[in-house]
Amino acid sequence: MNWRFVINQLGLLSLLLSAAMMVVGVAGWLFEWRSPDSVDTVALLALLGTIGGSVLVGGLLWLRTRGSVKHIGRREALLLVGVSWLIGAAVAGMPYLLWAHWHTAPGEQHPFLDPVNCYFEAMSGLTTTGATVLGDDYAIEALPQSLLLWRAFTQWLGGLGIVVLFVAVLPTLGVGGKRLFRVEAPGPAPEGLRPHIRETATTLWLIYLILTGVEVVALKIAGMTWFDSFCHTFTTVATAGFSPKDASLGHYASPAIHTIVIIFMVLAGVNFGLYYQLSRKRFRQVLQDTELRVYLGLLLVGTAIVTLSLINSPITLTKDLTVLEPSAASAIHHGLFTAVSIQTTTGFVTSDFNLWPFAAQAVLVLAMFIGGSAGSTAGGLKVIRIWVALKIMLAEIEHVFRPQVVRPVRLGNRVVDDELKLATVAYILGLVVLFIVGAVAVMLLEQWTGSNTCDFRTAAASSIACLFNIGPGLGHVGAIENYAWLTTGSKIVLTLMMALGRLEVFAIIVLVIPRFWRAD
Amino acid sequence: MNWRFVINQLGLLSLLLSAAMMVVGVAGWLFEWRSPDSVDTVALLALLGTIGGSVLVGGLLWLRTRGSVKHIGRREALLLVGVSWLIGAAVAGMPYLLWAHWHTAPGEQHPFLDPVNCYFEAMSGLTTTGATVLGDDYAIEALPQSLLLWRAFTQWLGGLGIVVLFVAVLPTLGVGGKRLFRVEAPGPAPEGLRPHIRETATTLWLIYLILTGVEVVALKIAGMTWFDSFCHTFTTVATAGFSPKDASLGHYASPAIHTIVIIFMVLAGVNFGLYYQLSRKRFRQVLQDTELRVYLGLLLVGTAIVTLSLINSPITLTKDLTVLEPSAASAIHHGLFTAVSIQTTTGFVTSDFNLWPFAAQAVLVLAMFIGGSAGSTAGGLKVIRIWVALKIMLAEIEHVFRPQVVRPVRLGNRVVDDELKLATVAYILGLVVLFIVGAVAVMLLEQWTGSNTCDFRTAAASSIACLFNIGPGLGHVGAIENYAWLTTGSKIVLTLMMALGRLEVFAIIVLVIPRFWRAD
Repeated sequence: MNWRFVINQLGLLSLLLSAAMMVVGVAGWLFEWRSPDSVDTVALLALLGTIGGSVLVGGLLWLRTRGSVKHIGRREALLLVGVSWLIGAAVAGMPYLLWAHWHTAPGEQHPFLDPVNCYFEAMSGLTTTGATVLGDDYAIEALPQSLLLWRAFTQWLGGLGIVVLFVAVLPTLGVGGKRLFRVEAPGPAPEGLRPHIRETATTLWLIYLILTGVEVVALKIAGMTWFDSFCHTFTTVATAGFSPKDASLGHYASPAIHTIVIIFMVLAGVNFGLYYQLSRKRFRQVLQDTELRVYLGLLLVGTAIVTLSLINSPITLTKDLTVLEPSAASAIHHGLFTAVSIQTTTGFVTSDFNLWPFAAQAVLVLAMFIGGSAGSTAGGLKVIRIWVALKIMLAEIEHVFRPQVVRPVRLGNRVVDDELKLATVAYILGLVVLFIVGAVAVMLLEQWTGSNTCDFRTAAASSIACLFNIGPGLGHVGAIENYAWLTTGSKIVLTLMMALGRLEVFAIIVLVIPRFWRAD
Repeated sequence: MNWRFVINQLGLLSLLLSAAMMVVGVAGWLFEWRSPDSVDTVALLALLGTIGGSVLVGGLLWLRTRGSVKHIGRREALLLVGVSWLIGAAVAGMPYLLWAHWHTAPGEQHPFLDPVNCYFEAMSGLTTTGATVLGDDYAIEALPQSLLLWRAFTQWLGGLGIVVLFVAVLPTLGVGGKRLFRVEAPGPAPEGLRPHIRETATTLWLIYLILTGVEVVALKIAGMTWFDSFCHTFTTVATAGFSPKDASLGHYASPAIHTIVIIFMVLAGVNFGLYYQLSRKRFRQVLQDTELRVYLGLLLVGTAIVTLSLINSPITLTKDLTVLEPSAASAIHHGLFTAVSIQTTTGFVTSDFNLWPFAAQAVLVLAMFIGGSAGSTAGGLKVIRIWVALKIMLAEIEHVFRPQVVRPVRLGNRVVDDELKLATVAYILGLVVLFIVGAVAVMLLEQWTGSNTCDFRTAAASSIACLFNIGPGLGHVGAIENYAWLTTGSKIVLTLMMALGRLEVFAIIVLVIPRFWRAD
């Protein structure tokens, strides 16, 4: 194990996060400065304090290990990925903690006074989950703008990190990602994505930047303030779901705003490898991509079912809990928005789907499991895995009564080999097991501490919503609720779930395997 | 497709069921005859009527196809297995229907007046599930003894059928069962089970008969009447769970009776292939069997957790809903009984575990999924599949960070090949999907018909309890509840679930695959 290099890179991570925080701090201050009484000096100090600390520690580590051999093997890569997210969340959550401690008077309460809440919120940010501990008496709107901007920006960073990691870095390293990637970029790609990490990463970064830029402008034109437009864009293109408003996107009545957000959620749930192909003018390959077709098909079907089941149902908006009379227009409006938001694992809400008919809820829960495309910022099991698993199961059934027929499982015009088949099905099964473990753990932890708020549905929903990086669930972690009321133990479990889901399990799980740490 | 032979065998099935019904009718009449006012002539007539009808139809079909070629291929075998259960349940449920129609006065109500209820009860019998539509105002005890005996005997027949099918018939035919069987009989078995179906089947039948005989006598000695002893034995050795008492085994206070039932439930959950090996004096092979060890280990761990979580918890008995004060003795007594009953998918109850602490309930739900051993009468996913899946997932995780190491998945000293690995994991995933489909279907059907009784937990529990052939679930299909209140649609779905679970999906699912019906 090349410890020096790993530490060197973690030092670099701290420095990069500090740089990002600096930019956000300045931007946040500029936003606040336009209406002078909204300038929150304590928040700026909290950001500065975190920057100082992590520059000091990260810089020292980086300097001390600067001369390390730049060899990185599978184990170093996995270690780096796993620890990066764990440490990144600690750095990203520090401003919340410092702000709360410096800001609140003695005796006052705030969720951010508890380090576990700050870590939860930061991990929810970096993993693009969107689950929050804010709300109720501690409104999101009450946070200073600089912190709200940082909160949104963590999601943007997390989304970028995930795309670059899964589309550019891991495949070239031949780690888990490579096998996944073979699924991610189906179709004849003799040269594959360019093998040069740096070049691919740069293209992806540009694509991400373009999406961001276009959405910011579109939202501003549709009537948002620049601040809200930036915050929502950061969390849309990362399919993440933090909003600077307590009512989330329901804060806005404008169908134009909702339409723009819907379009960008759909775009962000597409495999970024396809945008890379587009940038290389391989239109045919993009149009024929199996996962893209299935993804769009699922969105259509899901939206149709949700909308139909809402036709005769009143809709409770997240804004002031206004109740709309049943109408086709509002069924389409909120059905479409919610179906897209959940399937892409974004988690923006406009209405309280906790109160929707069961058919709509069932579709939403299935959509949570499926998620978006591989190689996108979306969570879930990923459309392509579900598709492959479906084909495998059909092939298995046929195999029972025609053992002599060996029908290969195809994806486009590529055959899925046995190893990948097993990996896919085992992965899905593994995540189902993790979901169950999470739900049981939360239920037990809540009961043992005597809380009666957590029912069966809430526990299951919180586990899904965090493992698959969605954010809002059902029951007491539903659209108009938050995670603050959970006990510390549950929050730690759910934080771990977010990291496990985001890094596709392996990167985190290998950290606890003894054999991983043994010298080769 | 050799249609003539298939029809010939189905005719034979009707004749065999009629013969069984005849024996049960006579035995039931003898039991009733001892206390003259309990003789229910209508019930005997209902049995006779069914016998007459099925002898007529079955006999005609059998005679007309007697000269058919005795060739049976994979497709014929699968067709036969699937249709046998579907038709068998229709024949087995007919006495309930006839009895209810001839017995009840106009205006009177009874669950058995509805053919769907009768089919549900009969399928629940033949698949050894144990879910019932009786209870509340229509007590099980109110049924005539001849019908109660028939009800128990359907489970005994179903259990025998499954054991013979999966251990003796399918493996020699090279159908799905063969691949399963490779898992079922691990260890060095150069000659395997004797390849002669008839001989193996005879041995299994003898083993089954011995288990039955010993338990009948044991229960009688422990204080049951002969009638109750027969009824409970039939449903214990089939790990099925019908009881002639509304309070199930909770009707008896005797720890001796409970202990005997526990022992025979454990024995019935063991792979019957191992008893075959015992009969051939291969003790070493039995002792070293992986599945047996894991099965017993799981029972121990499950019981321990359930018992521990019950220590401080009052226990509500199914008999008169008496509440016991928390005590170690009753925690062990009812914890052990329930853990064994659920893990072996028997479904006898002594106390209402709906009211137990969540930790105990979580263990019970996990046990429902796992189930007993392959090649036993128990349902669930089967211990061996869970074990293999666990090993596969560990190997997959290792594979991520050490792709060069290929570590074979072993079972005893045999290596599980890639095809079987995929089949195992795909099967588990398929059943999880089926469970979800079942739960969603029940929830939707209940909501659309306006019933408010069915909550999330009840729907999920009914789907598990039927798919995995357990019987009682949680919520409104819990230990002291029944399935009568569900809508017709839900009952049809759940009946299908029982058949799918019992026949390990494939035999039933291939019936609806168009390619299956095409001439080769």
